[in-house]
Amino acid sequence: MIEWKMREMDLSDLKRAPSTIWELETPVPLVDVDVACRNLERWQRRCEQLGIANRPHIKTHKMVLWANEQLRLGALGITVQKLGEAEVMARAGITDIFVTYNIVGAGKVKRLARLARSNEIKVTADNRECCRQTAHAAARAGRAIGVFVECDTGGKRNGVQSPEEALELARFIDGQRFLELEGLMTFPANGSRIASAEFLSKSQDLLLAAGLPCNAVSSGGSTDMWSAEGLERVTEYRAGTYIFNDRSLVDSNSCSLDDCAVTVLATVVSKPSSGDRITLDAGSKALTSDLRNFNDYGIELASGNPVYSLSEEHGLLDVRGWEGAPAVGDMVRILPNHVCPVINLFDEVALVRGEEVVGMATVDARGKVQ
Amino acid sequence: MIEWKMREMDLSDLKRAPSTIWELETPVPLVDVDVACRNLERWQRRCEQLGIANRPHIKTHKMVLWANEQLRLGALGITVQKLGEAEVMARAGITDIFVTYNIVGAGKVKRLARLARSNEIKVTADNRECCRQTAHAAARAGRAIGVFVECDTGGKRNGVQSPEEALELARFIDGQRFLELEGLMTFPANGSRIASAEFLSKSQDLLLAAGLPCNAVSSGGSTDMWSAEGLERVTEYRAGTYIFNDRSLVDSNSCSLDDCAVTVLATVVSKPSSGDRITLDAGSKALTSDLRNFNDYGIELASGNPVYSLSEEHGLLDVRGWEGAPAVGDMVRILPNHVCPVINLFDEVALVRGEEVVGMATVDARGKVQ
Repeated sequence: MIEWKMREMDLSDLKRAPSTIWELETPVPLVDVDVACRNLERWQRRCEQLGIANRPHIKTHKMVLWANEQLRLGALGITVQKLGEAEVMARAGITDIFVTYNIVGAGKVKRLARLARSNEIKVTADNRECCRQTAHAAARAGRAIGVFVECDTGGKRNGVQSPEEALELARFIDGQRFLELEGLMTFPANGSRIASAEFLSKSQDLLLAAGLPCNAVSSGGSTDMWSAEGLERVTEYRAGTYIFNDRSLVDSNSCSLDDCAVTVLATVVSKPSSGDRITLDAGSKALTSDLRNFNDYGIELASGNPVYSLSEEHGLLDVRGWEGAPAVGDMVRILPNHVCPVINLFDEVALVRGEEVVGMATVDARGKVQ
Repeated sequence: MIEWKMREMDLSDLKRAPSTIWELETPVPLVDVDVACRNLERWQRRCEQLGIANRPHIKTHKMVLWANEQLRLGALGITVQKLGEAEVMARAGITDIFVTYNIVGAGKVKRLARLARSNEIKVTADNRECCRQTAHAAARAGRAIGVFVECDTGGKRNGVQSPEEALELARFIDGQRFLELEGLMTFPANGSRIASAEFLSKSQDLLLAAGLPCNAVSSGGSTDMWSAEGLERVTEYRAGTYIFNDRSLVDSNSCSLDDCAVTVLATVVSKPSSGDRITLDAGSKALTSDLRNFNDYGIELASGNPVYSLSEEHGLLDVRGWEGAPAVGDMVRILPNHVCPVINLFDEVALVRGEEVVGMATVDARGKVQ
């Protein structure tokens, strides 16, 4: 059995806040720092055991504070999805950044060039046009930019469609003066690790046989992160949601309820005499409309009862058959279906230890979708 | 036939921007000012014809610029859902604000008191506890706060459940020293105007027979706004989405496609060789996961093709059978299902006239959910 030695985070920069969660303004996300730290440590150790580099995705927390904590615990660098996120992190002094996105567009090329000048930026590509634009950015920066060939290994999102296409694009990248071919990248569909591994192995073999470099193989996703299946070729892992976890990860047995670091604190504002529901001050502008695989928008932590309907600023909690259901003015904690877009709705979150508030922290990269 | 005389908005405060939409960073919402102005003017005229006061809901645009335009065109005041929105609008000099929300919680009471001191604030209530807290706020402000009894006329969200309950709560409000009973308020379910009117008429009759004041009857909603049905007792109307409209309002025949002022501009970043899809740089953090009654997340304006899948930063556009579908680097415009939560994701939007960019405007009350 491993004993988790909790390190002390530097929380000295936090904004002042009430002393307990019950004094907070609602709705607000509560981030339990001890749970989040435990999640970070456990995964870092796991990566070290597997001999895989940890490159956490900051799209979940979008906070400099947590990115720094991930690096302090041993992460190789960070992953971001958009240049706007990279800019925020780079301004905060984080220099090793993998932008897992195709960079396309005149404005994006300029911004990538600016970033690449003084940071170690890597990007993905799954088509020649985006390689050409990335090469322009690198030329402008006067410095090579590392590129991973993105492979569609079953996720049916971005990515080259076959190992042969991976080889073809790798050749193209290798032929660009300012691009450095790093290797392969995928965002595998949940439960598709074996198919993903086959695609990556075959692609890597093709690249190596053609005399192309392929040092790095990057995979990701929090749902399957604890499975060792199909990781043989993987050198780097990008997990995002694992820092906080959420209802969907509990549902997929990727974590337990105790591993969920984030709940949304809400106040009961109405309790109609119909007796079927209470209304919370958290609606789709606090919980998002993200259903994942559920039929409702989150559950109340104490009862497990669902938030069965949302409008923008109201959440309807089912209280049928619940003796002593909360009254108007009471506060409840909602476990969100999908934590990432929830954090993205808030300018700041409360860092807590149980019911104690440690301080308010800024969501630095909130809304940085460009 | 009515001729719309377009007044000139004051756009002098806008931030600098590129001259055409094709030079903008994506994803970004485009707000066509001429379409939005036409929507505002048309509804203002309609309210004047009906003899109903127009009290637009700013939750859709969340921008001081548009709230001022609504007032300039003849709106009586504005409606907001949360105190945070009211604070932003009050700071900008807008003083007549209806907060259609039950105010509950120690922090909220203090903030309501602060607002009420120098503004004409009205709120709703559907329970005694929230009336008591509102009365505390009013006492603290040293000034009466107007309260509307919220009625659940079929929306099954907040509200007293019967005209008899409306009377009982109205009596309670009237008995509070610092509260002023304004009348009745409802957010009717779509298509329930007749049932809603019956509830409101019966309630108003009960209040008046009991010697209670009931000068104002406030209804709202953009879906049914053009129907005159069941408006006999209504003195004020709160519409929000009508300024921009969206796919769901086109679907309910509340407006035409030409009346939709907002699209989300996105760039094609990937076009897999599978030929079934292209990937846009707009995902759920730009379009939201709000399905409304659809099976997908918005449509591409030129083709009508659906965004059939979203992850946080990717949107998958179905291009099966589309000859000459956009290539990597091309831009497309997506009509969102529900425009209100989309605007709430962005710090600024582009104001446009067709393809010309007028300037960038701040979403002042973005994220003000508390």
